[in-house]
Amino acid sequence: MSGGGDDGPTATFLLSCPDQPGLVRSVADFVFRHGGNIAHADQHIDRQEGTFFQRVEFSLDGFGVPRTELADALADETGDVGMRIDVRFSDVVPRMAILVSQQAHCMEDLLARWRTGDLEVDLPLVISNHPDHADLVRFMGPQYVHLPVTPEDRQGQESELSRLLVEERIDLVVLARYMQILSPSFVEGWRGRVINIHHSFLPAFAGARPYHQAHLRGVKLIGATAHYASEELDGGPIIDQDVVRVSHRDAVEDLVRKGRDLERVVLARAVRAHLEGRILLHGNKTVVFD
Amino acid sequence: MSGGGDDGPTATFLLSCPDQPGLVRSVADFVFRHGGNIAHADQHIDRQEGTFFQRVEFSLDGFGVPRTELADALADETGDVGMRIDVRFSDVVPRMAILVSQQAHCMEDLLARWRTGDLEVDLPLVISNHPDHADLVRFMGPQYVHLPVTPEDRQGQESELSRLLVEERIDLVVLARYMQILSPSFVEGWRGRVINIHHSFLPAFAGARPYHQAHLRGVKLIGATAHYASEELDGGPIIDQDVVRVSHRDAVEDLVRKGRDLERVVLARAVRAHLEGRILLHGNKTVVFD
Amino acid sequence: MSGGGDDGPTATFLLSCPDQPGLVRSVADFVFRHGGNIAHADQHIDRQEGTFFQRVEFSLDGFGVPRTELADALADETGDVGMRIDVRFSDVVPRMAILVSQQAHCMEDLLARWRTGDLEVDLPLVISNHPDHADLVRFMGPQYVHLPVTPEDRQGQESELSRLLVEERIDLVVLARYMQILSPSFVEGWRGRVINIHHSFLPAFAGARPYHQAHLRGVKLIGATAHYASEELDGGPIIDQDVVRVSHRDAVEDLVRKGRDLERVVLARAVRAHLEGRILLHGNKTVVFD
Amino acid sequence: MSGGGDDGPTATFLLSCPDQPGLVRSVADFVFRHGGNIAHADQHIDRQEGTFFQRVEFSLDGFGVPRTELADALADETGDVGMRIDVRFSDVVPRMAILVSQQAHCMEDLLARWRTGDLEVDLPLVISNHPDHADLVRFMGPQYVHLPVTPEDRQGQESELSRLLVEERIDLVVLARYMQILSPSFVEGWRGRVINIHHSFLPAFAGARPYHQAHLRGVKLIGATAHYASEELDGGPIIDQDVVRVSHRDAVEDLVRKGRDLERVVLARAVRAHLEGRILLHGNKTVVFD
Repeated sequence: MSGGGDDGPTATFLLSCPDQPGLVRSVADFVFRHGGNIAHADQHIDRQEGTFFQRVEFSLDGFGVPRTELADALADETGDVGMRIDVRFSDVVPRMAILVSQQAHCMEDLLARWRTGDLEVDLPLVISNHPDHADLVRFMGPQYVHLPVTPEDRQGQESELSRLLVEERIDLVVLARYMQILSPSFVEGWRGRVINIHHSFLPAFAGARPYHQAHLRGVKLIGATAHYASEELDGGPIIDQDVVRVSHRDAVEDLVRKGRDLERVVLARAVRAHLEGRILLHGNKTVVFD
Repeated sequence: MSGGGDDGPTATFLLSCPDQPGLVRSVADFVFRHGGNIAHADQHIDRQEGTFFQRVEFSLDGFGVPRTELADALADETGDVGMRIDVRFSDVVPRMAILVSQQAHCMEDLLARWRTGDLEVDLPLVISNHPDHADLVRFMGPQYVHLPVTPEDRQGQESELSRLLVEERIDLVVLARYMQILSPSFVEGWRGRVINIHHSFLPAFAGARPYHQAHLRGVKLIGATAHYASEELDGGPIIDQDVVRVSHRDAVEDLVRKGRDLERVVLARAVRAHLEGRILLHGNKTVVFD
Repeated sequence: MSGGGDDGPTATFLLSCPDQPGLVRSVADFVFRHGGNIAHADQHIDRQEGTFFQRVEFSLDGFGVPRTELADALADETGDVGMRIDVRFSDVVPRMAILVSQQAHCMEDLLARWRTGDLEVDLPLVISNHPDHADLVRFMGPQYVHLPVTPEDRQGQESELSRLLVEERIDLVVLARYMQILSPSFVEGWRGRVINIHHSFLPAFAGARPYHQAHLRGVKLIGATAHYASEELDGGPIIDQDVVRVSHRDAVEDLVRKGRDLERVVLARAVRAHLEGRILLHGNKTVVFD
Repeated sequence: MSGGGDDGPTATFLLSCPDQPGLVRSVADFVFRHGGNIAHADQHIDRQEGTFFQRVEFSLDGFGVPRTELADALADETGDVGMRIDVRFSDVVPRMAILVSQQAHCMEDLLARWRTGDLEVDLPLVISNHPDHADLVRFMGPQYVHLPVTPEDRQGQESELSRLLVEERIDLVVLARYMQILSPSFVEGWRGRVINIHHSFLPAFAGARPYHQAHLRGVKLIGATAHYASEELDGGPIIDQDVVRVSHRDAVEDLVRKGRDLERVVLARAVRAHLEGRILLHGNKTVVFD
């Protein structure tokens, strides 16, 4: 969907809590009474787990509660329902960093979407354990930092990585075919803010060289999966997936080539969903509103 | 999504009106104050036309307004906003008739879905201008009425058709590859309650013999389109569409064969969406909630 | 593609052997010199393994070699290249048996395709460990044999099953959601002639209750896989696969319902490919010509 | 499929003629007798029109006919069958020019594929009626020529365009969202060598502003079509098409955005098929071998 940006800034609540009667009404009431108008609202109830999810976007012009107090005010008025509240503002542009290794197609795709304004995000920083893409990235605009990884100093590289992300006030880290494993403590610290693209239809072919695995197994479709990073490698909450048809005619290198197009599109869709505040994390699953 | 049938009956409002502030809150408030709980709610605002659409499903157990007064009560409480209100009840099973000509695959598919409970609908009546399917349909259960069409008595056949649909209290007519043209007055009288399957990706290849047209043009995908019938042949509001890949190897008869699988699935999806009350008609377009 | 049935009977060679120069020419030469005309020819060379695969369909009218001697004659003329030769005739209709348990959708789909001539096959026999589908199957035409499975007499049931398949001269056994495990010796004896439909995108979610597994993992696509049965459960050579999009809105029962449409179409495509002699088995993989 | 480039250079015949017995054998025989080995061979017979199509790729090392005489030699040996013969060599890299207007996503995509070696092509020249992309293109490597179009001097611009294409010995012209109409004489002169991307599922929504047309009609899928340019605007032979699902939530600008991903992938697939010599033109249709 298109945002309501033409009509002044909006705030978006991402809400989840145990389901109970009156939640939709409470939130709608809160927005209405303080002078907002709901531009979009999506609800989902997971009946098995009894969990309520909502995304509500509303106009801020003339709204009777200051931005910094929105979450508290909503919590107050909805009462003691254990609601998890996340707030985003349409005029606060998030800041993204890309991590990349040798294969550049996902990074280039994100760069192009950023440059043309297709993705509304700031992109101050690209970090790689390879020096290869420096010229291209710098021509496009972002800073390119080469952070080589050595077996002896894996931890030092990650510390420097963390420092850069903090220094640049990064909101979202995109692993655009970054082939280094991040430590559990890094992943934990950035939970829900690191998106990875895995080049298979997870949970099939987790781990290394998925296209080789797929070729060996003789599958008739190959896939790509965008997911949030988690301690369990390739096991994090799935955001988006897609597949493309292959046949006996496709050698491993054909799978690699066809897969590249998939990876780019699936990763870009996941990044967009995150940036537009359409994803709610819940355990190891995601609710992704349209 | 799965309905909330386990928890007692529900009512579903299908609402549309010119957009204005407070609509979501008004409806949520109405449900809450009379003792209902919202099981599902979907909104859509068409910003170009400034139209608000909503589907709200809520529990009826203990609800403080009788079923027959629901629409009026909601209209009263939301005020003079020009709201179009449609109400459905989860425990009132709609009644469907199928019209079919010689090709039986769509009819058979709907029969199978009905028989196994996959579609929650009553299916008392199948009407055809051909006698061919009588044995199968009767074995399955529904009445089979053979209404031949002659050039001289097209109008008489349609009158009899109308009479049967009324007599059987039919809510939804499905044209499952019914190859006869219905009169404008029939279509007008049944507006929004007749679903047709056209065997092309409309608006490409409207009219007769779309697979022949597609083959002639050399397209690389063929499609099927489920839409509500309208005065303009193949021009009514589209509910669902899908495509399948074809190649130079496919002769017209291959397109026909591949198309059959498409037609069945697309038609069934559209019928399901209608039966579940997920479609809002608006001019010549549809809002189909997930 | 459409067969060449209008122009008299054809023979189809399915060939595989270690690749070497001149194979295409040898086969084309064989057909030409004996008076045949090639209607279709597809080749594939697996460069990694150095294996040559070919499917050649040619006219039999006036062909200078009797049907029973075709394979030997081709072997003679192509020389000592280790060629595996399989021959099929367009006017010899294969005989298929369906095995089914409680869920009938795949069986019903195959029955409908057989009854309308969409699948060119004889279907004399449906076997089930449940009595439920007897009336429907008998109305449609085939014999319905109820072979209950008891923990004590699993082997006895399989013996009776084998006896029936042989008695009815069955060429292809389709496991249309047959939920009983077949013994390794049965599978070995019927290698390449038993097609199973598994309700997941293999190798993801092998084993029991794949839709529950998929729901738990939070995937965004669900799949179905048609494969030849092998000793390793759900591990046999894959013939066809497909997927459909799902979301957080889909409960397990929605996955089951959406999956049914996938299963039917994927199984039917695999059965068609087998019946048209378009599949070459090679180790644990398949070559499926268009 | 992957080419056989590792094993020395290959030649590829693209052949078409009225069908008659012995064609496959004649060509295989020609290759064999002169010392070649067939790496790939695909045939297709259009039974309705009685036309034979073949693509044969074979090794050139030690082949007994010089490159320049291949077509004539084959014509001699196959006899008077009216065969149209096109020959390509795996070690002769074709030269491509891109024409682009304001929207750069298709051009950028092709540039990236060229730069990373994903497309085996030389790309000396990008021409645009806008100056906007000069810096990016030049950074990437190709020459960027700005050829503005004025109502008064449409013909002059096209002459200069033609001159540049000839000067740079261009084999393939790609209209990567080039929004200027080319004259019939230009199109005629470059028949089969100009690929255009149209942002709809042709023949639906030919002409201007297809996404607006699609939105107005309320379709549930949007498409993109890659085709050879022809005198009839948007009417040329279709090479590839694809679609993506849209819904009532998508405004025109969402269709535009979603369409961009489609356009890039469909155009790239068509360009690849052309560069790999897998397309045979036949009247207003294409045979595209896998």
